[in-house]
Amino acid sequence: MEANSNGPIDSGRVIAPPTNPMVTPLLTDLYQFTMAYAYWKAGKHKEQAVFDLYFRKNPFGGEYTIFAGLEECIRFIANFKLTEDDISFVRESLSSSCEDGFYDYLRGVDCSEVKVYAIPEGTVVFPKVPLIRVEGPIAVVQLLETPFLNLVNYASLVATNAARHRFVAGESKNLLEFGLRRAQGPDGGIGASRYCYLGGFHATSNVAAGKLFGIPLRGTHSHAFVSSFMGPDEIIDKSLHRSDGQSTCEDFVSLVQTWLSKIQDLRSVHSDLDSTYPCSLQRSKSLNGTFGETNQSELAAFTSYALAFPSNFLALVDTYDVMRSGIPNYCAVALALNDLGYKAAGIRLDSGDLAYLSCEARKIFCTIEKEFGVPWFGKTNITASNDLNEETLDALNKQGHEVDSFGIGTYVVTCYAQAALGCVFKLVEINNQPRIKLSEDVTKVSIPCKKRSYRLYGKEGYPLVDIMTGENEPPPKVGERTLCRHPFNESKRAYVVPQRVEELMKCFWPGSPGGVREDLPPLKDIRERCITQLKKMRPDHMRRLNPTPYKVSVSAELYDFIHFLWLNEAPVGELQ
Amino acid sequence: MEANSNGPIDSGRVIAPPTNPMVTPLLTDLYQFTMAYAYWKAGKHKEQAVFDLYFRKNPFGGEYTIFAGLEECIRFIANFKLTEDDISFVRESLSSSCEDGFYDYLRGVDCSEVKVYAIPEGTVVFPKVPLIRVEGPIAVVQLLETPFLNLVNYASLVATNAARHRFVAGESKNLLEFGLRRAQGPDGGIGASRYCYLGGFHATSNVAAGKLFGIPLRGTHSHAFVSSFMGPDEIIDKSLHRSDGQSTCEDFVSLVQTWLSKIQDLRSVHSDLDSTYPCSLQRSKSLNGTFGETNQSELAAFTSYALAFPSNFLALVDTYDVMRSGIPNYCAVALALNDLGYKAAGIRLDSGDLAYLSCEARKIFCTIEKEFGVPWFGKTNITASNDLNEETLDALNKQGHEVDSFGIGTYVVTCYAQAALGCVFKLVEINNQPRIKLSEDVTKVSIPCKKRSYRLYGKEGYPLVDIMTGENEPPPKVGERTLCRHPFNESKRAYVVPQRVEELMKCFWPGSPGGVREDLPPLKDIRERCITQLKKMRPDHMRRLNPTPYKVSVSAELYDFIHFLWLNEAPVGELQ
Repeated sequence: MEANSNGPIDSGRVIAPPTNPMVTPLLTDLYQFTMAYAYWKAGKHKEQAVFDLYFRKNPFGGEYTIFAGLEECIRFIANFKLTEDDISFVRESLSSSCEDGFYDYLRGVDCSEVKVYAIPEGTVVFPKVPLIRVEGPIAVVQLLETPFLNLVNYASLVATNAARHRFVAGESKNLLEFGLRRAQGPDGGIGASRYCYLGGFHATSNVAAGKLFGIPLRGTHSHAFVSSFMGPDEIIDKSLHRSDGQSTCEDFVSLVQTWLSKIQDLRSVHSDLDSTYPCSLQRSKSLNGTFGETNQSELAAFTSYALAFPSNFLALVDTYDVMRSGIPNYCAVALALNDLGYKAAGIRLDSGDLAYLSCEARKIFCTIEKEFGVPWFGKTNITASNDLNEETLDALNKQGHEVDSFGIGTYVVTCYAQAALGCVFKLVEINNQPRIKLSEDVTKVSIPCKKRSYRLYGKEGYPLVDIMTGENEPPPKVGERTLCRHPFNESKRAYVVPQRVEELMKCFWPGSPGGVREDLPPLKDIRERCITQLKKMRPDHMRRLNPTPYKVSVSAELYDFIHFLWLNEAPVGELQ
Repeated sequence: MEANSNGPIDSGRVIAPPTNPMVTPLLTDLYQFTMAYAYWKAGKHKEQAVFDLYFRKNPFGGEYTIFAGLEECIRFIANFKLTEDDISFVRESLSSSCEDGFYDYLRGVDCSEVKVYAIPEGTVVFPKVPLIRVEGPIAVVQLLETPFLNLVNYASLVATNAARHRFVAGESKNLLEFGLRRAQGPDGGIGASRYCYLGGFHATSNVAAGKLFGIPLRGTHSHAFVSSFMGPDEIIDKSLHRSDGQSTCEDFVSLVQTWLSKIQDLRSVHSDLDSTYPCSLQRSKSLNGTFGETNQSELAAFTSYALAFPSNFLALVDTYDVMRSGIPNYCAVALALNDLGYKAAGIRLDSGDLAYLSCEARKIFCTIEKEFGVPWFGKTNITASNDLNEETLDALNKQGHEVDSFGIGTYVVTCYAQAALGCVFKLVEINNQPRIKLSEDVTKVSIPCKKRSYRLYGKEGYPLVDIMTGENEPPPKVGERTLCRHPFNESKRAYVVPQRVEELMKCFWPGSPGGVREDLPPLKDIRERCITQLKKMRPDHMRRLNPTPYKVSVSAELYDFIHFLWLNEAPVGELQ
């Protein structure tokens, strides 16, 4: 169920406002307003402009990106209107010589003459191919540049980061986003939770994001909870009903203590364990008489937590000493709960050698399963956290580990490995005249013209190449040879015979109120799209080390036109 | 003037809500609510807890940090109240077995029993010293952990980043924050603008931040503006009043054209330039007959922009070719404006070799000053942008440049060099019992007890050391020998005779409604504090390369207590 406190995002013709109420027409660079004034003063403000929003390089050293942030862009333009207060502030901020007529003009500005074509959110995308194309009166479209970039850049970056983490962790693992406290501001946190889920995470700790977007929530307790207890003596209400409600254990604290003693008595009796367990259990030193003293404040905290959440007892076991205290204390409480018909939810490790500790913990769980005949105990869920990122996940995989769930914070939400995506918003046409932005750096030359983009698929179902064409060129056809050219490198070109042709951009905002537009799907559908798309990619594009670049091309006709325009615009004598 | 659309931040006893309406009690980790329930269930929820918020390591490889985000924390707690809607959502998110009494309790929760002591915002701060101390009922204080960390971590990180950029750029330069489009979400952008200003930046491009916080705004036009013009023919209204209003130039376009011709005729006549100009001007090749053809769409754009903003003409000169087109076009328009009594505002360079181009541009401006007798022209303001960061600023300084203002975006707002600060929130006392969090990693051991912190100043006025003491110890005294001990390293200790003793934490939220508290100062005062504090630091702590760590210590009494507690809590046999 999509729980959204703003009501439905997209009910027929009414689209909800941006999630963050701070996203208003003033959330833009001042120069968008100075330019709007200059356009207006020159009588150019209604000229029809076409801008492409795209990025130049995939993030994180990878060869793919997940496009996200579109829904917020559409919510923004659907509700775009400057208030009188906004207009007063713009007037204060511009030169006092600016004419009043401009502010009258601003008062009437909305996005009813703007058209937005975009690739659906959650799609795997590549450099240079427009993610969004915005058409409309130049002064208005210009005002959208900064908010669109702001809404797309981080969203796509963090969704990509999440997808990469999921790829390394492997499909069978649960990924939990725990980053709110380290995020770049409040909606750095809220956005991170949303777009990590989109990119394939399973849950978040962020309650506000859970409420806004219906993302599953996870969370148990912290180290402070553990150290806030002194010892079991302070537990007053020691009773706990059985899970079936049939009876009540009057002294759960003593039951835990009994189990702790049994665990402490476990010595040298487990050498006959079979080797079907994943860690190839041998005689576990950890169980060999080292369970003498466990920390009593920890034991009290675990017992209290179990009394509060008997059906969902998950313990953070590293406040004092994982192997000597956290694990035996957890096992004692979990076994006591088991007596009353409750199945404990597992442990969380938040420090130390996660590979080693998870394997050792698994051995103990398996031993307990065998010794005490508790059939599920060996499969106790182990969650690991503590500064995890792609590299540490990869290292854990190489070392071998027994972790079932990863709690990832700082590195995924702040995109620590690369904190920004460089989407740009470039003018490609004005009044039906194609425009090009030149640069000494060829990767910064823009691809002119209002364009269409297609993804061509090969026989094995993998996408082979994206191709951009002029707006009015015939589309590539299934089964026909299509020449795909590198936009700037004459020698790079190839014929492709597509088995399937998919047009990438669809109309999400038709301008005219009655126009047909794509619906904004719920977050879980966008997440599904993302996961499905990633599975369809050829594996060599996805690998972490030296991935193969996915090809992005232009049609022969567009190639010729780019180079005609380039020569035309470049100052004579520049090609030294 | 502080322009704040929310009204005054702090008028007497009423404190405005958080700037971002998304900052609500639900902007927290789920485990804060599960713990609150477990505390409540155990009857512990009203126990008096003391938590310290601090960080362990300065960011960016430096030896100092700027503390920021406090105002938002105080605004948050001053308005802390769960709505019925919030409570329903918490109920849905917790186990269905949780008792109703807990939700009644949540309904009544506010921060009237919480006390907040903090170092004033904008202070230079160091690892381990508490930035904020929060005291109150443990269940309530626990709910504050995540929002406090979220509000402080990024604010302090970006303020520190801004201060570091300012340090490298040098005090005489103007620093403009242009990062909104690349920021981590909408209030990643708004927060960045606010805290970059706090850290010493001079202005922002972000209109919303200008409106919310009264930060000066800057901005002119983009490349798209330039390429949206075809040529001067499309300019319809060519008239421009003189600045004194005495007369009107009917054809400003022709006036520009005349000046462009004069500039193009400038050849070989400037070899007699004296060498008083900063770039040691010699015969400039750039002026030597290469001004043959400038880009006409650029010339039209500049002319139009000047017609719209004659008093504030600042041109982006790198759309086509800086030296062959942008600079001569700018000069022609600036000289035409000069004829009408307007002084142009300067140029912006957004690509290429900024050191070289700024020096070449300066030479041309100086030549024009001399040749055409325009006395201010040599000092034309040069702004540079394009992926600037600490390293590129440093490199520009080493190469020599003529840039007056730097526009910095991505690297400052996303804190690209280190995207997160690791502030933590640790329990240090409960029911007057000190608590310690142990860790195999000694840097992660917390410093127990409710503490006071002092900054001790030396003879030359520099801060020498910060010292933490127990709450009830006598403070260090001016002129008296004070033993300062490293909290964890027995052999590191020194006597200090302070010339001045400053207690660092003040009460910003006294709990009881009538209590005395520090006012929340306006942003510009916080910025002043930050700049003044930075100037007072000993230079070796501030340098970029191998800065000297600033010393942070504990009193002898606190040292002994820490180690007593440590031994007490550590499981026997852990010290292998």
